[in-house]
Amino acid sequence: MGQRTVFFLSDQTAVTAETLGHSLLTQFDSQDFRQVTLPFIDNDDKALAALKKIDDAARREGIRPIVFSTLVHDDLRRIIQGSEGLYLDIFDAFLGELEEELEQESSHSAGKAHGVSDPNAYMKRIEATNFALANDDGATVRNYEQADVILVGVSRSGKTPTCLYLALQYGVYAANFPFTEEEFESGELPGLLLKHRQKLFGLTIAPARLQQIRRERRSKGRYASAQQVRYELREAEKLFRRYSIPYIDTTEFSIEEISSRILDSTGLERRTRP
Amino acid sequence: MGQRTVFFLSDQTAVTAETLGHSLLTQFDSQDFRQVTLPFIDNDDKALAALKKIDDAARREGIRPIVFSTLVHDDLRRIIQGSEGLYLDIFDAFLGELEEELEQESSHSAGKAHGVSDPNAYMKRIEATNFALANDDGATVRNYEQADVILVGVSRSGKTPTCLYLALQYGVYAANFPFTEEEFESGELPGLLLKHRQKLFGLTIAPARLQQIRRERRSKGRYASAQQVRYELREAEKLFRRYSIPYIDTTEFSIEEISSRILDSTGLERRTRP
Repeated sequence: MGQRTVFFLSDQTAVTAETLGHSLLTQFDSQDFRQVTLPFIDNDDKALAALKKIDDAARREGIRPIVFSTLVHDDLRRIIQGSEGLYLDIFDAFLGELEEELEQESSHSAGKAHGVSDPNAYMKRIEATNFALANDDGATVRNYEQADVILVGVSRSGKTPTCLYLALQYGVYAANFPFTEEEFESGELPGLLLKHRQKLFGLTIAPARLQQIRRERRSKGRYASAQQVRYELREAEKLFRRYSIPYIDTTEFSIEEISSRILDSTGLERRTRP
Repeated sequence: MGQRTVFFLSDQTAVTAETLGHSLLTQFDSQDFRQVTLPFIDNDDKALAALKKIDDAARREGIRPIVFSTLVHDDLRRIIQGSEGLYLDIFDAFLGELEEELEQESSHSAGKAHGVSDPNAYMKRIEATNFALANDDGATVRNYEQADVILVGVSRSGKTPTCLYLALQYGVYAANFPFTEEEFESGELPGLLLKHRQKLFGLTIAPARLQQIRRERRSKGRYASAQQVRYELREAEKLFRRYSIPYIDTTEFSIEEISSRILDSTGLERRTRP
């Protein structure tokens, strides 16, 4: 089977079209898709240029491209609908039903589709990101009063990217503290964590996977050895159980999934929404 | 008009349902929506519990909830379709057309909807995040060979969260370097940036907005003064123009939009996709 081009097209960032499209395409994982994002298609000229790209791909590949779209303006939508591609648009699919249910016309104007200018949400996400950076890897511990959640676990178990994702995506204040020799040897949590025990959430990971991740950093030495990795994970999990810290195994999970599971398990409120 | 509950429901993280739902809801911004995310609905018991939550909301509010869903399994979908809510599912809406076009049955099994276990993509995103952290705020400059893009601009113009978002969302290697008094006074770029001039991308922002952001950090002193902020932004923009650095004004933009515009403007390839 030949390659087929998939377009993610929007008058805005195209993040929604990408997210939607990927969810659907993973249902057809034997196929070979070339993915092209065309954001900010917000006037006729850009729509006509996008149309040309779609039709060029159709001609080149001899197969119909797929177009995931979130175009709000009817006139731009009509232009792209004239392409050779299979046109799938979330506004076409759902807006009619929503208008009927809400007994209201949608604002139906470009620039409204992604909550562009919510300076309040922007600030919250920035502040949460700054919090995650300042409280990464146990760098400071004096802000734990402010934390929504404090991730704990061994080095490279996924704490930092998860904290950053929670901040950027949901505006959640997430700190993280790495377990080290000190905790493993004593088998005890430090006092500064005990004080915030209700906020702790543990990450663990399969030894082989952790070894692989650590090797990417430093290929030699004890840090990435099978023995060390197994020892640290065993001791960390003992701590989770001893102090009844909820925890998850991140081995099979994406950053989105780890984050979503933490919110689900802790019942934490999202401060902003994507 | 009373409050109406909106559910984002999925057998996975519900990120797709949230993203889709928000794009559509921003079209009805006068309404008062209570938003509830129900992820990991992957068995009958959880589906029945979700159904109860939807029906409880309907009874309590006297108004039909809206349910944005990405449930792959037909039997779980049927349970939720029996609720009082307006059920909008992306698989219902698009999967049939895609199956027909691709001449293939979808894999149609939970756990496939979000590319759960792509360890390769996970690694790329983690490595890109580590790169962003190591090369934040001009902390190190020796890795610029590896950078896909180097963001430049005054302090608090949005460089750090944008770099982190580019890393987490797209696996792009983004460094950032803050312009300071040294660059403003000389009117020149330092040699280490000149060497990578093709990778530079500038961020600027409206003075009033920057003042507001800086005040959140340190309320007093020159740092957040109107005069200082105007001076720094004027000098930074001079540098952008002098060295033909492409730049955007982030004042009205979300982090997604800034990131998407950088990728669009530079033509940078996404290394992973959300």
